[in-house]
Amino acid sequence: MADETNSSDRGTAHSTRGSYVTGGEFTRDTNYIEDRIVSDVDAVSALPPAEPSKIGELGVGLTEGATAWPAEPGRYRLVAARACPWANRALIVRRLLGLEDAISLGTPGPVHDARSWTFDLDEGGRDPVLGTERLQENYFKRFPDYPRGITVPALVDVESGAVVTNNYPQMTLDFSTEWRDHHREGAPDLVPAAQWEEMKPVIERIFTEVNNGVYRCGFAGSQEAYDEAYDRLWAGLDWLEERLAGRRYLMGDTITEADVRLFTTLVRFDPVYHGHFKCNRSKLSELPALWGYARDLFQTPGFGDTIDFVQIKQHYYVVHEDVNPTQIVPKGPDLSGWLTEHGREALGGSPFGDGTAPGPVRPGERVAPGHSPLYPA
Amino acid sequence: MADETNSSDRGTAHSTRGSYVTGGEFTRDTNYIEDRIVSDVDAVSALPPAEPSKIGELGVGLTEGATAWPAEPGRYRLVAARACPWANRALIVRRLLGLEDAISLGTPGPVHDARSWTFDLDEGGRDPVLGTERLQENYFKRFPDYPRGITVPALVDVESGAVVTNNYPQMTLDFSTEWRDHHREGAPDLVPAAQWEEMKPVIERIFTEVNNGVYRCGFAGSQEAYDEAYDRLWAGLDWLEERLAGRRYLMGDTITEADVRLFTTLVRFDPVYHGHFKCNRSKLSELPALWGYARDLFQTPGFGDTIDFVQIKQHYYVVHEDVNPTQIVPKGPDLSGWLTEHGREALGGSPFGDGTAPGPVRPGERVAPGHSPLYPA
Repeated sequence: MADETNSSDRGTAHSTRGSYVTGGEFTRDTNYIEDRIVSDVDAVSALPPAEPSKIGELGVGLTEGATAWPAEPGRYRLVAARACPWANRALIVRRLLGLEDAISLGTPGPVHDARSWTFDLDEGGRDPVLGTERLQENYFKRFPDYPRGITVPALVDVESGAVVTNNYPQMTLDFSTEWRDHHREGAPDLVPAAQWEEMKPVIERIFTEVNNGVYRCGFAGSQEAYDEAYDRLWAGLDWLEERLAGRRYLMGDTITEADVRLFTTLVRFDPVYHGHFKCNRSKLSELPALWGYARDLFQTPGFGDTIDFVQIKQHYYVVHEDVNPTQIVPKGPDLSGWLTEHGREALGGSPFGDGTAPGPVRPGERVAPGHSPLYPA
Repeated sequence: MADETNSSDRGTAHSTRGSYVTGGEFTRDTNYIEDRIVSDVDAVSALPPAEPSKIGELGVGLTEGATAWPAEPGRYRLVAARACPWANRALIVRRLLGLEDAISLGTPGPVHDARSWTFDLDEGGRDPVLGTERLQENYFKRFPDYPRGITVPALVDVESGAVVTNNYPQMTLDFSTEWRDHHREGAPDLVPAAQWEEMKPVIERIFTEVNNGVYRCGFAGSQEAYDEAYDRLWAGLDWLEERLAGRRYLMGDTITEADVRLFTTLVRFDPVYHGHFKCNRSKLSELPALWGYARDLFQTPGFGDTIDFVQIKQHYYVVHEDVNPTQIVPKGPDLSGWLTEHGREALGGSPFGDGTAPGPVRPGERVAPGHSPLYPA
């Protein structure tokens, strides 16, 4: 599951809500609503059935039981909490590709209740387009007895109010490949077909060792499971530190989907994972290549401008009451370093290659002043 | 109280055990067994009564109801858990002054139970000299219904097994001034009489803003109390960072009691207070003057050789179950930086002034291999 809406995210003995603990080890449930929104419904539907994938796949058919929906501008609403790292991927890719006009955005607040992410930041506590108070209502419009976690990101069919898919690993790949007709001019190709086979093991390792690795540390049910998770996470980060010492981006000279997937974990590392999840061999800011790389991306339009540090910290420290029973949110760390010079230009490359940077953030989608060093109070 | 033996240390509504919370703010109970061990019992007993002091006092009489005991080598045993910052002061001062032969040492383990610090690291689970399993027994030998926290450091009269005093702020001052006849040759004067009036406001500010300030963050009962505590702590650390930028030690060119009192908090900062107590504006290692200063002291005989990072981390993360319900102890941070060059010699001065460094740690008092970068596994 992506980011859970109930405390089962944190290591209870078993759960139908997206995660569970076996022998003390946190395990992520990777079952989703695997419908897809595609450019050619008939063509995709005719392809041989695909296996579910924890990282998503290109050029494949539907998984068993899934349905294809047409990529129609204005038809779907992306529901993505800024707090959630898995939803954050979709926020970034939508910005980079210029899909703001094609797919509208609803943003639940950071502190969901036991049942659901809620639209508590919106006027009257309801999403202005969907009209719902809880994202759960939109899951129930799809499946009245939906038994799993109410996760973000979710794409909702606006007319029916029903969730189409919450399959986040596939979602951003489909933004890149199935919505191509609706990309902005100058949009980067985040998933170059020729690079996909080379990219897959990288994003898979990032998923298992880092994206999920921090959760494995934080939700470990025993000292032994934690110790193993910690060593595994740091082996992954050491690998990335070495990889990024000599190249500007993960796959070379321009940004790709792989960078998006790593960035959303890195940006949360010092504010949350380092302390709250005990991923504390060092701060990100003590790893020269990764810290330079993370700042480089943060300062690139489409990345840093999606980040709301206040919501990120509130989410983890308030929702994970069994890790942080006081629910007190730390005031630190000092985030001003995110805007310092990173020196990564010396490695060559340019983020958008032959493309261009996305334009300014839409007025209604700006991160609140004081919630990021990019937007002073 | 020094370091508490029960969960009341952490912010229950009220407590006779050493701390309580008022309006969400953590308040340290500073009532102790205020007997003193002095060089001239009659002279001290004849002085006018003194007020209790949270930082201790020089040249004063006894507080009301307190008794003076004679400073006799071999008569008393210092019980001091390595984990506890307040006990750590006594460990350092005893080493610096060479009181090892005059005052023996018992060391409870880091993870006490609800009732008491325990001698669980000793053979058979009993202190080899006192013969007790729990320090509580020694408190009860003094006061059968002792109602307060069983705290370290405590000085115990070996023959009777009764605690003489647990008044840690006075204890180290008395080591320096009342045990002078038993100091080693070359022992530094940690409390120069001529400097005491100048030193008092410094150690008082360090106590209220830093030594206790980290606890005020960690045990805050509300977001508001925490936010205030965080700002207050960092104002204190900023003051110290500025003070130490231009001088080698707190009071000038040589170490004093003030340095001992600051060091025991600084050495715990990155391993514990930064994450566990949410004192996370930055790590100590990100504050150039304080980090250089802390490493300078760590590398000075008598300071770093008393530090057991494993016990320190175990204590806080296991005992404070309502801050860290999983009781999982973080593997980080990487501590190798403590042995790096600090460059503080450039500021002049020398730790022991006209005196000398203490000799090697006694064989039975060495920190276990693997528990400190000074003692590799």
